[in-house]
Amino acid sequence: MTRHDGRTPDQTREVRITRNWLDHAEGSVLVEFGRTRVLVAASFTEGVPRWLKGKGTGWVTSEYEMLPRSTNTRSDRESRKGKVGGRTHEISRLIGRSLRAIIDTKALGENTIVLDCDVLQADGGTRTASITGAYVALVDAIEDARAKGLIAQDAQPLTGSIAAVSVGIVKGEAVIDLDYPEDSTAETDMNVVMTGDGRFVEVQGTAEDGAFDREMLDRLLDKATVGCAELTRLQQEALAATPRERVL
Amino acid sequence: MTRHDGRTPDQTREVRITRNWLDHAEGSVLVEFGRTRVLVAASFTEGVPRWLKGKGTGWVTSEYEMLPRSTNTRSDRESRKGKVGGRTHEISRLIGRSLRAIIDTKALGENTIVLDCDVLQADGGTRTASITGAYVALVDAIEDARAKGLIAQDAQPLTGSIAAVSVGIVKGEAVIDLDYPEDSTAETDMNVVMTGDGRFVEVQGTAEDGAFDREMLDRLLDKATVGCAELTRLQQEALAATPRERVL
Amino acid sequence: MTRHDGRTPDQTREVRITRNWLDHAEGSVLVEFGRTRVLVAASFTEGVPRWLKGKGTGWVTSEYEMLPRSTNTRSDRESRKGKVGGRTHEISRLIGRSLRAIIDTKALGENTIVLDCDVLQADGGTRTASITGAYVALVDAIEDARAKGLIAQDAQPLTGSIAAVSVGIVKGEAVIDLDYPEDSTAETDMNVVMTGDGRFVEVQGTAEDGAFDREMLDRLLDKATVGCAELTRLQQEALAATPRERVL
Amino acid sequence: MTRHDGRTPDQTREVRITRNWLDHAEGSVLVEFGRTRVLVAASFTEGVPRWLKGKGTGWVTSEYEMLPRSTNTRSDRESRKGKVGGRTHEISRLIGRSLRAIIDTKALGENTIVLDCDVLQADGGTRTASITGAYVALVDAIEDARAKGLIAQDAQPLTGSIAAVSVGIVKGEAVIDLDYPEDSTAETDMNVVMTGDGRFVEVQGTAEDGAFDREMLDRLLDKATVGCAELTRLQQEALAATPRERVL
Amino acid sequence: MTRHDGRTPDQTREVRITRNWLDHAEGSVLVEFGRTRVLVAASFTEGVPRWLKGKGTGWVTSEYEMLPRSTNTRSDRESRKGKVGGRTHEISRLIGRSLRAIIDTKALGENTIVLDCDVLQADGGTRTASITGAYVALVDAIEDARAKGLIAQDAQPLTGSIAAVSVGIVKGEAVIDLDYPEDSTAETDMNVVMTGDGRFVEVQGTAEDGAFDREMLDRLLDKATVGCAELTRLQQEALAATPRERVL
Amino acid sequence: MTRHDGRTPDQTREVRITRNWLDHAEGSVLVEFGRTRVLVAASFTEGVPRWLKGKGTGWVTSEYEMLPRSTNTRSDRESRKGKVGGRTHEISRLIGRSLRAIIDTKALGENTIVLDCDVLQADGGTRTASITGAYVALVDAIEDARAKGLIAQDAQPLTGSIAAVSVGIVKGEAVIDLDYPEDSTAETDMNVVMTGDGRFVEVQGTAEDGAFDREMLDRLLDKATVGCAELTRLQQEALAATPRERVL
Repeated sequence: MTRHDGRTPDQTREVRITRNWLDHAEGSVLVEFGRTRVLVAASFTEGVPRWLKGKGTGWVTSEYEMLPRSTNTRSDRESRKGKVGGRTHEISRLIGRSLRAIIDTKALGENTIVLDCDVLQADGGTRTASITGAYVALVDAIEDARAKGLIAQDAQPLTGSIAAVSVGIVKGEAVIDLDYPEDSTAETDMNVVMTGDGRFVEVQGTAEDGAFDREMLDRLLDKATVGCAELTRLQQEALAATPRERVL
Repeated sequence: MTRHDGRTPDQTREVRITRNWLDHAEGSVLVEFGRTRVLVAASFTEGVPRWLKGKGTGWVTSEYEMLPRSTNTRSDRESRKGKVGGRTHEISRLIGRSLRAIIDTKALGENTIVLDCDVLQADGGTRTASITGAYVALVDAIEDARAKGLIAQDAQPLTGSIAAVSVGIVKGEAVIDLDYPEDSTAETDMNVVMTGDGRFVEVQGTAEDGAFDREMLDRLLDKATVGCAELTRLQQEALAATPRERVL
Repeated sequence: MTRHDGRTPDQTREVRITRNWLDHAEGSVLVEFGRTRVLVAASFTEGVPRWLKGKGTGWVTSEYEMLPRSTNTRSDRESRKGKVGGRTHEISRLIGRSLRAIIDTKALGENTIVLDCDVLQADGGTRTASITGAYVALVDAIEDARAKGLIAQDAQPLTGSIAAVSVGIVKGEAVIDLDYPEDSTAETDMNVVMTGDGRFVEVQGTAEDGAFDREMLDRLLDKATVGCAELTRLQQEALAATPRERVL
Repeated sequence: MTRHDGRTPDQTREVRITRNWLDHAEGSVLVEFGRTRVLVAASFTEGVPRWLKGKGTGWVTSEYEMLPRSTNTRSDRESRKGKVGGRTHEISRLIGRSLRAIIDTKALGENTIVLDCDVLQADGGTRTASITGAYVALVDAIEDARAKGLIAQDAQPLTGSIAAVSVGIVKGEAVIDLDYPEDSTAETDMNVVMTGDGRFVEVQGTAEDGAFDREMLDRLLDKATVGCAELTRLQQEALAATPRERVL
Repeated sequence: MTRHDGRTPDQTREVRITRNWLDHAEGSVLVEFGRTRVLVAASFTEGVPRWLKGKGTGWVTSEYEMLPRSTNTRSDRESRKGKVGGRTHEISRLIGRSLRAIIDTKALGENTIVLDCDVLQADGGTRTASITGAYVALVDAIEDARAKGLIAQDAQPLTGSIAAVSVGIVKGEAVIDLDYPEDSTAETDMNVVMTGDGRFVEVQGTAEDGAFDREMLDRLLDKATVGCAELTRLQQEALAATPRERVL
Repeated sequence: MTRHDGRTPDQTREVRITRNWLDHAEGSVLVEFGRTRVLVAASFTEGVPRWLKGKGTGWVTSEYEMLPRSTNTRSDRESRKGKVGGRTHEISRLIGRSLRAIIDTKALGENTIVLDCDVLQADGGTRTASITGAYVALVDAIEDARAKGLIAQDAQPLTGSIAAVSVGIVKGEAVIDLDYPEDSTAETDMNVVMTGDGRFVEVQGTAEDGAFDREMLDRLLDKATVGCAELTRLQQEALAATPRERVL
């Protein structure tokens, strides 16, 4: 089977991770999974939300949002509608929860890191691209804080790395990293967040058309495991390089 | 290992499904998983939302909400805060999506069924209790509509049954149907929605503390499969009986 | 004259007061006036709203809300609409004000009691059922606080009891405790809140169709006086009993 | 007993009704009860809200609001807070309901009249001043519509007149038309809306401090009856005169 | 050329400034530019918004709003819509910014003055009338604070005076102080805020129909300069007089 | 005088206009004024808002928003706050109004173009960059619509071109295109929108510190005229080129 864009079932789209795309943020990444393009800004601030004060632990959270014309037809802005939609909330929560899985909040101290994930262009997989990019921005924000003396030289707030990929069943076949045409016709859609050492942080599978059996579930999990390992490699590569200069 | 309330790892709490708890709704269920108590009302109305008009298909959706004092300490009402929280949105969407997995919207015709799931008392597992109870209320609402001639005598809007259970890892051990004390200390928490014939509709697993490996994931899925089968049996039992009279 | 459900003009519907319907709340009551069914939860918390701090007085307030399918046809949730309607506000304020009439806020100390009145099923008289039930939940919450040492052993925050009933003119005749079919056709509708010793706390009469004269007003007040006395007796009875176990 | 401003218990404050205070509105009144000053605008528009369409009946409603500095200390604007408070809702509903009591909506045809009551200065009794003034503005708006041919020459949408006054118990004594210093110390506060022929449309009594007995309630109703008759006379006087030119 | 109301191009409408129109506010003005009528209340309060605390400087701000029937056809209330419109925000910000241009916030001390500008009747030029009136109310509020000892006897929070006028191009001709019929047909509309000594604080010109050239811009600025000087004179006159008694 | 970044008073920052930065939008531009970076998407849709229906004219509007970390410190999202701030409203309105100045809405037919201007990075001049970029995106969207046959081959909806620049007084000297350090210390700040043939569409000048005299105003207008001419040239250059491929 070949996919509509010529990829094999196991092949992710071209992934690009451009660090330091912004000048102000403590960490920032423009992450692209094919035509999906998400701008991630990591903001490090001293202090924590009120409900955490005085506990000696930090906080990592995320806000995800799509620009109105990131999609094929324009959507109304949530700010104009005066309320944030369920999907936006759900994905924001997923990203924050995923990142906290690899954060030692004690080691972070009473500091907060907000990961803003703004989808500039959407072509499927915006939440997995967000998580994958946010990890890199998070690393940069923590190193920036260390350099400024806001966390101790030997503090290790990060306990591992994290990456995410979507898998799904399209025309009866399990495939990885679905783009929008695939996603909108998939029978089953699953988002998997994994640590760099191959363990699961989030597994969210949804039957879009009927239900799926255990055997198919197992195949999807196998594919996701391979895909996350590949994304982990790309993250490490991006982090190893001197931050690439922005080129427009 | 025994659990804090004496259950075995495979044992769900006492599940009670009281049909027709309300007089007005086309279908209604008071569903209890131990001390968790959810009132489900199924409202059948002719017509569909604007974006579905004229397509000859129906719509099933859900709204979940917790009463302010369903929990151990009082929470502010979302109506007073003027906005619906992310968790509420997320669970409402999950319930609606799960039910739609067993609905043939063509056979439903241009009609809408809303499943209101109001948590009167929360002790863990409110979303799985909601789904399990909502299925029963949905069956009653469809039969009510059939009796009133709102859908055809031979229409089969239901393509199967659906039930949901939580599974998780507590103190290193996989257990089923976590109550609040277990849920709040679980290392991993997974909600699984399955059809009556044993296939998956939703799998949502979250590592609350670190990550979990594939072997543990498999054990959790095994447990959920057994649990959903048991809940399916209880649903059928409830539906077979003459609707029990409300007794307070 | 007989009423559509066989009652005499002076007869309230069957009133049931089930204490401790909830496990978490400091006081709770499921109150039923016929088919009208309201769940009242009394939440006792230490501390007072900011504007009362440091004055040595407590606060009692209430929030009333109807479940979307408590009524004959489903209503949209106020949380989803993003704003609380005028009727909801008005009744919440009435309940809180009524209860404060029998509270010595000095004796309560700097503590707050919130009475959540959620209408599970509506068949007329939801506000009067709420007030009548809320008084019982309030008593239980205060005794609970006393038992926990949150208020002094000899503190007497309650200065009396309170009950409420609706009266109205239906087909030219004054009747008590209107159900929905009566309420929706009444020429005049009046809600009366009275203390256990027969004095008035709130009198809210509205001509729905034309106006009413003084003589009719007097008859309505007479009927309400009798009805509140009866409800007071039922409250005392409920409070005298060992809290009934919940039976579903 | 003399009151703090020298009035007798039965004496209302100086009441002034200035018609046509605005140039655009179909009817408008600046109504003053002493230092309380409310600007009422009656807007007549063809058509009715959606839920009334095609029924051949009209609609009369009201919106009440206080300017932020109408009171002794500035209050935040409800528009800035993003929500309308309970008190505002409650009074708006009271005014609308009161006016509808004397409207034959059939005779009004499918037209809507909105009574905007904006409190420019508050010194107690803003809701009763609003109702009293709104009646006059309503009459003018109906005559304006008749002159423009928007309602028939012989249509009689008004079935009577309406006026409102507050009564209360201050230092144990029943008094009429309380100003703010009296209102804020009253033991009982009652707002009474009556028709020009002496029947009741709304009776809203609230014990602010304890409860009140039937005898006191009767005395308050007596006083209100006298007061509303006096206000009715002043309304007729204002309506009989050539609309007074605005003088500032 | 004569204008539709007989004015010459350089002639403002009749301007009336009535001080102390309200009893509660520290300063208040009913300002009229022809039929445009704005009620300005200046509220002086001790303390400053949180973000200014401890800096030893005061704050002056403004909130502008139109009554629903100030205009020819009724507009919905922003409080009911749950959000403040862009135009309202924009004008509120303009008024506040303009007044701060002549305030020495150090000399004001940690005090706040809010200028509420409520448009009772609109006939063009509501923002310029608001600014012109607000200056007078501001002076009175500062003198009131001085009299009460809230600011020092020798403090000079005011560094000048301020007035505003609209100018525009109507049928090709530059005119001053446009009323609504002119404003709605103007090719260009400009609002100019100037100090009493003839310098500019705000210049906001908008081409409503096409664009305007430099020569026309210069003519508009010339006209505005003359008009603001005239308004400054009227402000001084109003402030020189014993506050006029309110006459209705 | 040299400026802090080495520019002369008359020199704009490096301006880059990258067309077709997005794949979905009918027109799109990434516009950069130095480090200020705005993503503009032009969405062409058939149909017009309700209030324009059936008039045979089109509509052009704009929504401006800043990403939370476009600025030096993170700002809360307006969608999360549930309301759009005054500044956001004001700039959105300015952009829409400016573009409509060069649109013949009759020639556009009953179609709508929305210009979404999202500030990815802010360093002063975001509104002028937005307008300058939006013009280019608008041209592309109109040509795209023409190519798709949505507007007639010979329709000329554009009546000219438009560009915008800021000018201001910094340390007593008039300079052009202020960056954030200059903007935040400027005595006067003016935004000027001009047509390609050198006429004014918007002039918005604000004294940030005191007031400015006519002579300074004239100098600012001179500078703006030169700057807008230069920006017009750059727009034409960008539009003349084959749309540059995106390079990241």
